[in-house]
Amino acid sequence: MTNSHELLQIARDTRGVVTLTLNDPTRFNALGSEMLTALQQALDDAGRDESVRVVVLAAAGKAFCAGHNLKDMAAHPELAYYQKLFAQCSRMMLTIHKLSVPVIARVQGMATAAGCQLVAQCDLAVAANTASFATSGIHYGLFCATPSVPLVRNVPAKRAMEMLLTGDFIDAPTALAHGLVNRVVPADALDAEVEQLVQSILQKPRVAVAMGKALVYQQRELGIDAAYQLAGQTMATNMMDEAAQEGARAFAEKRQPAWKR
Amino acid sequence: MTNSHELLQIARDTRGVVTLTLNDPTRFNALGSEMLTALQQALDDAGRDESVRVVVLAAAGKAFCAGHNLKDMAAHPELAYYQKLFAQCSRMMLTIHKLSVPVIARVQGMATAAGCQLVAQCDLAVAANTASFATSGIHYGLFCATPSVPLVRNVPAKRAMEMLLTGDFIDAPTALAHGLVNRVVPADALDAEVEQLVQSILQKPRVAVAMGKALVYQQRELGIDAAYQLAGQTMATNMMDEAAQEGARAFAEKRQPAWKR
Amino acid sequence: MTNSHELLQIARDTRGVVTLTLNDPTRFNALGSEMLTALQQALDDAGRDESVRVVVLAAAGKAFCAGHNLKDMAAHPELAYYQKLFAQCSRMMLTIHKLSVPVIARVQGMATAAGCQLVAQCDLAVAANTASFATSGIHYGLFCATPSVPLVRNVPAKRAMEMLLTGDFIDAPTALAHGLVNRVVPADALDAEVEQLVQSILQKPRVAVAMGKALVYQQRELGIDAAYQLAGQTMATNMMDEAAQEGARAFAEKRQPAWKR
Repeated sequence: MTNSHELLQIARDTRGVVTLTLNDPTRFNALGSEMLTALQQALDDAGRDESVRVVVLAAAGKAFCAGHNLKDMAAHPELAYYQKLFAQCSRMMLTIHKLSVPVIARVQGMATAAGCQLVAQCDLAVAANTASFATSGIHYGLFCATPSVPLVRNVPAKRAMEMLLTGDFIDAPTALAHGLVNRVVPADALDAEVEQLVQSILQKPRVAVAMGKALVYQQRELGIDAAYQLAGQTMATNMMDEAAQEGARAFAEKRQPAWKR
Repeated sequence: MTNSHELLQIARDTRGVVTLTLNDPTRFNALGSEMLTALQQALDDAGRDESVRVVVLAAAGKAFCAGHNLKDMAAHPELAYYQKLFAQCSRMMLTIHKLSVPVIARVQGMATAAGCQLVAQCDLAVAANTASFATSGIHYGLFCATPSVPLVRNVPAKRAMEMLLTGDFIDAPTALAHGLVNRVVPADALDAEVEQLVQSILQKPRVAVAMGKALVYQQRELGIDAAYQLAGQTMATNMMDEAAQEGARAFAEKRQPAWKR
Repeated sequence: MTNSHELLQIARDTRGVVTLTLNDPTRFNALGSEMLTALQQALDDAGRDESVRVVVLAAAGKAFCAGHNLKDMAAHPELAYYQKLFAQCSRMMLTIHKLSVPVIARVQGMATAAGCQLVAQCDLAVAANTASFATSGIHYGLFCATPSVPLVRNVPAKRAMEMLLTGDFIDAPTALAHGLVNRVVPADALDAEVEQLVQSILQKPRVAVAMGKALVYQQRELGIDAAYQLAGQTMATNMMDEAAQEGARAFAEKRQPAWKR
């Protein structure tokens, strides 16, 4: 556990659950360059550590994440600065996408612009019913271009376009209906709901989860013939893993799989 | 404002809102060659005029649009005629898609075949609760192939396939649930609801909206790595625009952006 | 009609409706190699027979289909065996996808793993409200990679990922909300609901349905410009067909099309 004064709190339990908590509540957990660096480092560390099983992305304070720090951006009116910033942010988002373990967003409050993007980019998301979501950059003349990347891959086309053009908030039940989050619960049930998903993932073999997550996103970008070819090969390889062999034997013998944890 | 006897009424207000009204109610606003030519011309004009901010696509009479004119098509049983007709129609649809300003469908009644396609192809759509939608060509032996292009990009796969194979109508609430339209309201609230979206778009800088609309549709067709690269570059370029600079300063100074209109 | 002791029952009525009934209820209609071979043969036969108009995929007993036979798989811990098995299964799934007539899943019970994949892969699906759906392989250490191919093409991204990572069941109303099935009805209304879709398809000309089904799936994999080009060409070709010509004339003459059946 890192110091509670850190911009990003990193907690890790004995089960291999890493919880990253955005901890800059006075700035609504904005994704400044320092925060992005901390997230990148923490995600890279999680990706290298084979004992990590799942990452929970949480936030301290009332807001989940307000996206980029427009104040910093106003102070640096330079193309190269912006290119570097968005490249840094996109790299972090793609790290979530490519991480070998599932990343679950725990959304307790407002998620705007790149904060909304974070939710969309995670593999799973659980929101408190008090959470709200907006791709609000357009209110300041900055269309949420990078947030639109995971948004259109999660939310139906016209709903995504409405969010992007209006910048208006949607509430948690609407986010659920649109597919932006998996579950919406009262704020005091948020941890229990996230824990339920965490436990479900912990019960599965790491290698199968890692292979599967990567496969889903890869095959989705392919034509259906190529997708089936890749998926079939992945599944055959997965089946040769000791955990799947034990799983199949356990199924045949009508018992629970006995997996090393 | 053009003559009310025109096939396509073109209204333009001082704010840069162009309203195109299909005005052939006795033929249910069918997309004959003349209507398509008028639409193409009006859309091209809107695209060239930098003072235009948004296009509303509306219709006079009880029907929104009945699609192609099957009577005309029956009179010309020639492959070259059909190829030309569908190419003309597809070009118009792609012009909506590529127009630098958002296009909002105002759907007051029945939208069938290429009429349903028009709704699907617009960036946003608001429907009266009396509106209805069908890809009905299959009832006459003509599968709605070109309407399927925007349909499958807006509506879940099995729902799109059901509409295309059965040709059956869905009502406005169902269209909303399937993502074909953004909002459904009583008929007498239709104009107010469209106006709300129009005003929201008018409040945003034109350049950011134009860059954003183009980016969303471009990146959607790319793999996620390429999508992020394009989006990051777009966002950096957008940020260098004077409107975004003013927006960021306004944010930092806790005031409304002062944009030239 | 084949023998009721066959693994796969094949019924065919005078209208050209082929009903394939998975008939291995004691093994929950698992997709063993023999069952896959029988399905492949029956689908290939249906594809070659121009008098076939629609295929209904049904199942006997309480379960719809439990997917691959894990017991068989446990008995053959060989990569080549698994590669062959998944290739065989994927080929059958792609045969459904590419069949010139629509395939409707009639889901009376539990559809798990490759059984859930079957439902997702069909063009249309009707479920009893007692049906349930899971991509459950992950419970045994085998991520449902091939099922994920049609799943992510039918169901929103985060919902698909939740099903794949947790392996948990969703009930029929949830499957309907997620787009996995077209309709959910009480078990005793299942046949009538399937029959309604069957009759709707039978009323349409075969050639238009065949051209349309192929076009929808092809154009969906293309960029929008190429999609419109292919769709326009398909529609012009479709229009030259005698059935479409008669349909257009019938429309012009305000009568029903008189199509040879």
